[in-house]
Amino acid sequence: MYQESSGWKDTIAAIATPPGIGAIGVIRLSGPGALRIANDIFPSKDLAAEPGNTIHVGMLRDGTVPLDEVVISIFKSPASYTGEDVIEIGCHGSPFIQQQILNHLMLHGARLAKPGEFTQRAFLNGKLDLTQAEAVADLIASNTAASQNAALKNMRGGFSMILTEMRDRLIQFSALIELELDFSEEDVEFADRTKFMDLLRELGTMVDGLLQSFRWGNVIKNGVSVAIVGSPNAGKSTLLNTLLNENRALVSEIAGTTRDTIEEIINIDGILFRLIDTAGIREHSSDTIENMGVAKSREKIQQADIVLHLFDATLVDRAAVRHFADDIALQNPVIISVANKTDCLDEVSLREIKKQFEGAIFVSAKMKSGIDELKKTLFAMASRHSLAFENVVITNARHYSALLKVQESLEEIRRGVENNISGDLLSSDIRRCLHFLGEITGQVSNEDLLDYIFSKFCIGK
Amino acid sequence: MYQESSGWKDTIAAIATPPGIGAIGVIRLSGPGALRIANDIFPSKDLAAEPGNTIHVGMLRDGTVPLDEVVISIFKSPASYTGEDVIEIGCHGSPFIQQQILNHLMLHGARLAKPGEFTQRAFLNGKLDLTQAEAVADLIASNTAASQNAALKNMRGGFSMILTEMRDRLIQFSALIELELDFSEEDVEFADRTKFMDLLRELGTMVDGLLQSFRWGNVIKNGVSVAIVGSPNAGKSTLLNTLLNENRALVSEIAGTTRDTIEEIINIDGILFRLIDTAGIREHSSDTIENMGVAKSREKIQQADIVLHLFDATLVDRAAVRHFADDIALQNPVIISVANKTDCLDEVSLREIKKQFEGAIFVSAKMKSGIDELKKTLFAMASRHSLAFENVVITNARHYSALLKVQESLEEIRRGVENNISGDLLSSDIRRCLHFLGEITGQVSNEDLLDYIFSKFCIGK
Repeated sequence: MYQESSGWKDTIAAIATPPGIGAIGVIRLSGPGALRIANDIFPSKDLAAEPGNTIHVGMLRDGTVPLDEVVISIFKSPASYTGEDVIEIGCHGSPFIQQQILNHLMLHGARLAKPGEFTQRAFLNGKLDLTQAEAVADLIASNTAASQNAALKNMRGGFSMILTEMRDRLIQFSALIELELDFSEEDVEFADRTKFMDLLRELGTMVDGLLQSFRWGNVIKNGVSVAIVGSPNAGKSTLLNTLLNENRALVSEIAGTTRDTIEEIINIDGILFRLIDTAGIREHSSDTIENMGVAKSREKIQQADIVLHLFDATLVDRAAVRHFADDIALQNPVIISVANKTDCLDEVSLREIKKQFEGAIFVSAKMKSGIDELKKTLFAMASRHSLAFENVVITNARHYSALLKVQESLEEIRRGVENNISGDLLSSDIRRCLHFLGEITGQVSNEDLLDYIFSKFCIGK
Repeated sequence: MYQESSGWKDTIAAIATPPGIGAIGVIRLSGPGALRIANDIFPSKDLAAEPGNTIHVGMLRDGTVPLDEVVISIFKSPASYTGEDVIEIGCHGSPFIQQQILNHLMLHGARLAKPGEFTQRAFLNGKLDLTQAEAVADLIASNTAASQNAALKNMRGGFSMILTEMRDRLIQFSALIELELDFSEEDVEFADRTKFMDLLRELGTMVDGLLQSFRWGNVIKNGVSVAIVGSPNAGKSTLLNTLLNENRALVSEIAGTTRDTIEEIINIDGILFRLIDTAGIREHSSDTIENMGVAKSREKIQQADIVLHLFDATLVDRAAVRHFADDIALQNPVIISVANKTDCLDEVSLREIKKQFEGAIFVSAKMKSGIDELKKTLFAMASRHSLAFENVVITNARHYSALLKVQESLEEIRRGVENNISGDLLSSDIRRCLHFLGEITGQVSNEDLLDYIFSKFCIGK
């Protein structure tokens, strides 16, 4: 295990609060020298003599020159985030002063922390496993209730527990098979092959469920893309405004690369939806989307999680609308049909058109009617794939691809058992599967992987 | 005193760290309900039962739904920043999560704090006076060692102490004079008029010194403007680059309005200098700046704290250079003459030209020679007006204008004593002076003034 290589001699420091001017800035120190280094510029108390989890107010000084009046929080090893001695310095939120304090900490022996290095130390000191460490970064990046919940659950070890359970049960069988090897002369079978096949099937189902939850996890992390198609006169702008007025996303910034086609982001019950304009596609009974030459829009429709087809319920050319809907369905089967402008129809016409477009949602964007139903439908479609394991959702592409390998190796073990291969080979297949499981939690890891994972963290975490 | 109106029933809350994503965010609560409100969403411990200045790690919850794993710092009244019970919640640095926590605090009875409201409460609870409170804001805005030092000194009460001393001594005399009024029938003089005149003179000198320090204070706060004049071929760009390479200001953002004429900002020994281009002015022996019609450049020269006149030491037309320098001096007498390109001169020519331009600084921007002397000269010119009171510098325009009133009223008192006016009138004049002194520290204040001062603070401070 990689943890054996821990035990640092150096002390790391970083500004942990966001850059810019604020009321408070926090600078973090972790390592064996944290108390001593902080004490060098905070002379009024002997920090090493103070108990952990206490707060001390005083002046930071460079010799006799005062630097800032600060609040020092002491966390003593092992009861700290990293497991080492940790000092947090709450200072006045001037970037200049924060930088100055950091410089002085370095003058007294601290080293600038790399991104995620505090959490990396926490992992390497066994304070949390890799999925929990990764959940910390997800939590910091979370911008909806759903992503917050998923990250918090993983941070508290929900995913790890499932993985550990799978691992433990596999190890039990592995031990029995290895035992058989010791008695190979005698041709005994300690490991009941039928029970083992049951276990493999059960584990396979668990992995399938976790893999399926990734679709939902992705939705949670990156939002649901909704391509909106429909003529301009269908009332798209009005619909967008109505949705936005009520549900504008609290946080507009989304992790990941810039997506220049995004129009608007809304938050429905804690899930982000990206409403993507596909201007350029109109209903024409004579044209198909294929031959309209709007490749870009076709791509957007194909890539979208959901296609929202908005049409004007008052228009007569209903054949064209239906033809168009069928045509979209060839590109992407996940469609909501939304008939707008119901406020312009009398009772009779409305009843008639509702019959014609069964399954469609009828709204008046202008009068804000039917909007709740539309939102509920969007939410339901987004969450349809969710919650195979009630609480645990895979949100991380690294976990997803490791789980694919677990799935594959489980399949291989099963084939081996079916073909009655030697205990030797079976044992090696099982070890392979255990390896992939261990890679997810970090029980098996390598420095490159760790560096990659933690490099995506904030500085100071 | 305004302090009598303190004693709040409500509890204020705000995000105290800068906006944006970081490792840590800090949310602050202050008021009689701080412990109870924090406890409502931090159920694992009874915060009220814990001692002050302690740290508690645990989960924030909305009922059973976890919100975030946080670090709670408890500061108990009166040993806190505001003097009230204060809770600081260190959470994961997701803006979404910070906002959620803040929302939950408000659901449980906190109110969103106004800018500077924590410091305003600290002032109204007598934890610091007005000059100290204002220094907190200055400290947060500080971006050089000089502005940091000035703010720290004022925060620790340096200015207040001088004002208090002045006030106390004035009050002593005032008491004696009021005593005379009680015995007015008897025509006694308790207050020695000669000694009083001495005191008034002494106080006047102190006020003059403080007023003079404002020029330095302004320099500290806003930087020193240096208008650079000289032909393009004098090597201005090279000089700028040489200065910038070594001394680019750590923090480029400067408080105050945008100044579109600023070219570059450098930091020399903790003082900011704004190097302002005055392109368009060249040396011509026949022209004067006046009739060159470059009003804008003339304005820059007039407004600058220092004019740096850069010329090419190798050029023959030294009469033109000198004529030009004289001409500048009419606009602004604070000039440094800088002769560039000394590397192109042989020993003899250099010696000769040094004789011709005594007092000039000789540099080679290209070879980086003489730059240290230039920087020392700039620093010396900037700090020339400084430190009448060794440590205390007025950086605040409000203090400056109040001190002007103090100066005026001291003068009035002195005239009164000279004209032997009645004790009644003298006493009223003294009270007026004490009023202006008290306005600075906030011993005399009104709600509008306080609102104005604190509205310029960060939220969360």
